[in-house]
Amino acid sequence: MGRSYAVVGTGAIGGFYGSLLQKIGLEVHFLLHRDYEHVQKHGLAISSINGDFTLPQVNAYNDVKDMPRCDVVLIALKTTQNHLLPDLLPPLIKQGTVVITLQNGLGIEPEIASVVGEDIEILGGLCFICSNKISPGKIHHIDYGQIQLAAYGTDGKPQGITTAMRQIAADFEQAGIPIQMEENLMLTRWKKLVWNIPFNGLSVVLNAKTDAIMADLHGRKMAEQLMREVVAAAFGCGLKIDESFIQKRLEDTVKMKPYLTSMKLDYDFHLPMEIEAIFGNPMRAAQQVGVPVPQITMLYQQLKFLEAIGNNASC
Amino acid sequence: MGRSYAVVGTGAIGGFYGSLLQKIGLEVHFLLHRDYEHVQKHGLAISSINGDFTLPQVNAYNDVKDMPRCDVVLIALKTTQNHLLPDLLPPLIKQGTVVITLQNGLGIEPEIASVVGEDIEILGGLCFICSNKISPGKIHHIDYGQIQLAAYGTDGKPQGITTAMRQIAADFEQAGIPIQMEENLMLTRWKKLVWNIPFNGLSVVLNAKTDAIMADLHGRKMAEQLMREVVAAAFGCGLKIDESFIQKRLEDTVKMKPYLTSMKLDYDFHLPMEIEAIFGNPMRAAQQVGVPVPQITMLYQQLKFLEAIGNNASC
Repeated sequence: MGRSYAVVGTGAIGGFYGSLLQKIGLEVHFLLHRDYEHVQKHGLAISSINGDFTLPQVNAYNDVKDMPRCDVVLIALKTTQNHLLPDLLPPLIKQGTVVITLQNGLGIEPEIASVVGEDIEILGGLCFICSNKISPGKIHHIDYGQIQLAAYGTDGKPQGITTAMRQIAADFEQAGIPIQMEENLMLTRWKKLVWNIPFNGLSVVLNAKTDAIMADLHGRKMAEQLMREVVAAAFGCGLKIDESFIQKRLEDTVKMKPYLTSMKLDYDFHLPMEIEAIFGNPMRAAQQVGVPVPQITMLYQQLKFLEAIGNNASC
Repeated sequence: MGRSYAVVGTGAIGGFYGSLLQKIGLEVHFLLHRDYEHVQKHGLAISSINGDFTLPQVNAYNDVKDMPRCDVVLIALKTTQNHLLPDLLPPLIKQGTVVITLQNGLGIEPEIASVVGEDIEILGGLCFICSNKISPGKIHHIDYGQIQLAAYGTDGKPQGITTAMRQIAADFEQAGIPIQMEENLMLTRWKKLVWNIPFNGLSVVLNAKTDAIMADLHGRKMAEQLMREVVAAAFGCGLKIDESFIQKRLEDTVKMKPYLTSMKLDYDFHLPMEIEAIFGNPMRAAQQVGVPVPQITMLYQQLKFLEAIGNNASC
């Protein structure tokens, strides 16, 4: 009997990964909100670069109290919804449950730990994926898909590769999801921020895709400077990211297809942006260890301003 | 016989001040470009909070070679046109001519000095005025109007109040233009930048008026931080601006009518922005004296990016 999975937040990320797990025969329970009725009736449909498929029947819920406690809980809400976790998580958890957050940014796992307690294993799952929900129950997987998995320790220290991590990674791999197991969660998270901070922020403030930012002399300089601040902040937190990593990420970005970041999509669709998880928490972490991050700070403030004003002004 | 004035650039600034000088009977010669034919035929019309008036006949030129050499040359081009000065200034200058630049930003006077030579007195005229050219030859003076006059010294040192400055100030005062004579040009210029850098820059990048920036917590913080960097840069250049000046400028801005900065108007009308004079030159001055100005630098880069991309993307 395979592991049972609860998917909290059945959108572009949770719907995609959860569907792949169900497709190989695992028991998956999907929590939905707006799309509940549609998915309850019609299931989920995935159009993916790896092949299209539909799941006409899924276990759909609109109330966590109707869901069974599961072996694994995948959190795929936007971090702007994390104030709901104290209501959503406890009914899904039993002894031995592993909670995986598939969310972006910093400071997520401590928040989860404060809800589920120290006896529950928490993994960070960093998703490198391009996917969109195009209509209720319909997800378009455009590119990539890898997840980096790393274990959270309440002391913030590296936990190495755990048994639960290996088992869950095996499920994902069987479902066709490439998994990279990482020993150091915080290092993995900061490394992802090296890209996310410049490109999510600048894409919104400058109304630009990744290729336009990289093609412009000043755009590229800004990205590089912001990356340096992220690396300096990480170093202040005891995490060494090599200089070559910055150059590699810049070069990778040049080679990428022109890309609208998730934050830019949120902004354009008038949805809440994940400003605190991706900018606010890293900024405060840097401040706590006395590392100046003036450009991250200004980008954070610009995003907060744009969110407060509403983005009507830009049209 | 009164002093003769040449106005180089007959727009919202040059057209307004030049008209007031002609109105009190002084000899004024206006250099025009696009509006030459209209103004040659119909003169200039000023609608001002201080009273409307028209000058049906003005000395209008579209070639500086047709103009007489004058006692005073007022430069009221945009700084983005200053590459034209080597052609425009020499034909207007004789022994004893005083050149006044009514332009914004830093590094203007040395550029003029390199064109006209060290024997010609150069004054900086910092305009505190709201005025727009609304159609060819028609200028709308909305508010304010004061000019701060200060003398340029090739050594960058304060020159005090000069005789020429007093005489020209008397002409302006007689024409109804409030003049404040300043002893220290560089200090006066940096003080103006304390306001111009945050509000010109943020108004473009955030698509916002002054009141919206000041009403938002993060907008106000950004303005204050940028002001602090300007003050630090000035201090690095040996110029002391008091902390209270920052608070005063912030409070003044709250009390102002909601205001679209000149840079924002340029951006919206797809005209070149004065990025180098207002941002680039102060940034480089700070770098030369080793004062870090990371937030001014990022704002500069954002403006350069937006200008390079064109602002079509924002619509």
